[in-house]
Amino acid sequence: MIMDDLFARAKVSPVCLGLDTRHEYLPEYLKQNHKTAGEQIYEFNKKIIDATADMVACFKVQIACYEALGLDGMACYAKTLKYAKSKGAIVIADIKRGDISSTAKQYAQGHFSGDFEADIITVNAYMGVDAVSPYYEYLGKKGLFVLVKTSNPSGVDFQDQLVDDNPLYLTAAKKVSEWGQNFIGNSGYSAIGAVAGCTYPSEFKKIKNLMPNTFFLIPGYGAQGGTGKDIAEMFSDGICGVVNSSRGLITAHKGKTEKADFTDYIAAATEEMKKDILKWL
Amino acid sequence: MIMDDLFARAKVSPVCLGLDTRHEYLPEYLKQNHKTAGEQIYEFNKKIIDATADMVACFKVQIACYEALGLDGMACYAKTLKYAKSKGAIVIADIKRGDISSTAKQYAQGHFSGDFEADIITVNAYMGVDAVSPYYEYLGKKGLFVLVKTSNPSGVDFQDQLVDDNPLYLTAAKKVSEWGQNFIGNSGYSAIGAVAGCTYPSEFKKIKNLMPNTFFLIPGYGAQGGTGKDIAEMFSDGICGVVNSSRGLITAHKGKTEKADFTDYIAAATEEMKKDILKWL
Repeated sequence: MIMDDLFARAKVSPVCLGLDTRHEYLPEYLKQNHKTAGEQIYEFNKKIIDATADMVACFKVQIACYEALGLDGMACYAKTLKYAKSKGAIVIADIKRGDISSTAKQYAQGHFSGDFEADIITVNAYMGVDAVSPYYEYLGKKGLFVLVKTSNPSGVDFQDQLVDDNPLYLTAAKKVSEWGQNFIGNSGYSAIGAVAGCTYPSEFKKIKNLMPNTFFLIPGYGAQGGTGKDIAEMFSDGICGVVNSSRGLITAHKGKTEKADFTDYIAAATEEMKKDILKWL
Repeated sequence: MIMDDLFARAKVSPVCLGLDTRHEYLPEYLKQNHKTAGEQIYEFNKKIIDATADMVACFKVQIACYEALGLDGMACYAKTLKYAKSKGAIVIADIKRGDISSTAKQYAQGHFSGDFEADIITVNAYMGVDAVSPYYEYLGKKGLFVLVKTSNPSGVDFQDQLVDDNPLYLTAAKKVSEWGQNFIGNSGYSAIGAVAGCTYPSEFKKIKNLMPNTFFLIPGYGAQGGTGKDIAEMFSDGICGVVNSSRGLITAHKGKTEKADFTDYIAAATEEMKKDILKWL
């Protein structure tokens, strides 16, 4: 069960390193060749994976950054996933797909097998259970993180609309928890997890109370404003998720003048994030 | 303004032909070669575009069907978009992306330029205006269809939750209409359109009342149960959208034993759908 495995790794380090790689993040020396942007980004990602694989619970790859570069980017995306898996890492594909049942089946095929195979994908359930159930046949070996409460400022536009005096995200929390009941592993966590941002730690308590068997992907740490203390509040009953940082880690080398390799800065930032979270627990 | 252009075409034929192509839809003779599945699907799509471009307002390409085939599928996706554009067609990329602002910027680059450039994309705004505003700089030449009320049965799971005694999709309708006010073209329609399924025609009236400047992408016709009469109810004040059919059109040749080319059946089905809608108006 992938979520059991992820939970076991999260207890050692709850860090999820986000490979939301933009070409401008690359150090100059990786751009001084005749490779395509996608190939250069792959080299960058590969070195980051090598440097940090033992320090993180998992990697999250934001597919938008690769779609931005067209076919070259998608080839880089496929290679990055494959490389991370070859190193024994768990890979979350941050794709936030959500569509009617027949279409979601196609996404399931695309992201749970073949070139773009990932271990866990993120899903947007605005279209209801139809957008989620086509993945059920893969669950166990594969997992989902369904959006419940996102970390961005305008997440409130819909997610905080009041339904029976409670914000909509609590309706989402209840539904996602229900859907997950048939997929609970030995760790007590379901293969259907949820996304809940750490930019709203007090709201997380209410979400968690409705979702006792749910493991979380927690965005919002670092560049988006979430802190180790916020995470500590969320993990007061124990580690129940992985905490993502993308820009905060993979741009740690930017503006540094010493001659160390860029991966040293990224590894140091990853170690620091890990400590920043674990010191409160 | 792309939405003005689409509206002008919709008045002639409101049909949006959905290239949600699965390999099993192809006639046997297109599979009898050494090409990849993606290359074969491209041949199929190309012939459909040739046969129907004058009979439709636009094509909609469901990216999930191409992601399902990995890199080979994405190459087919890129070529299909390019070919449709070379024929002067308007292409809607049905990608339903939705993410935080910095990520949505990457999607905007990916789907409004380069290999995957489309004229209009579908967007999921569960994450709020952050998921939509990064596209603003492209609007006019490009357009959006934001999900308001989807055509699938479980769309009600979230979209029909009551907020101040009204279903959430009406909150979505209001917001999408507001966001679109700065992008209204000569036709009176905004570059920010909305998705509203024809499987719920009575609810469409309420949506439309809140969105006088919104042009609609209307899924749900045919295979999903929507009829010409449902559309007539939605278009009682005039054509205000394009009506999509995918499976209902591009599998019209399946099970036919006559020797006509598959494109003849698809063109006939497209013509029939056009008439089925226009006869009520």
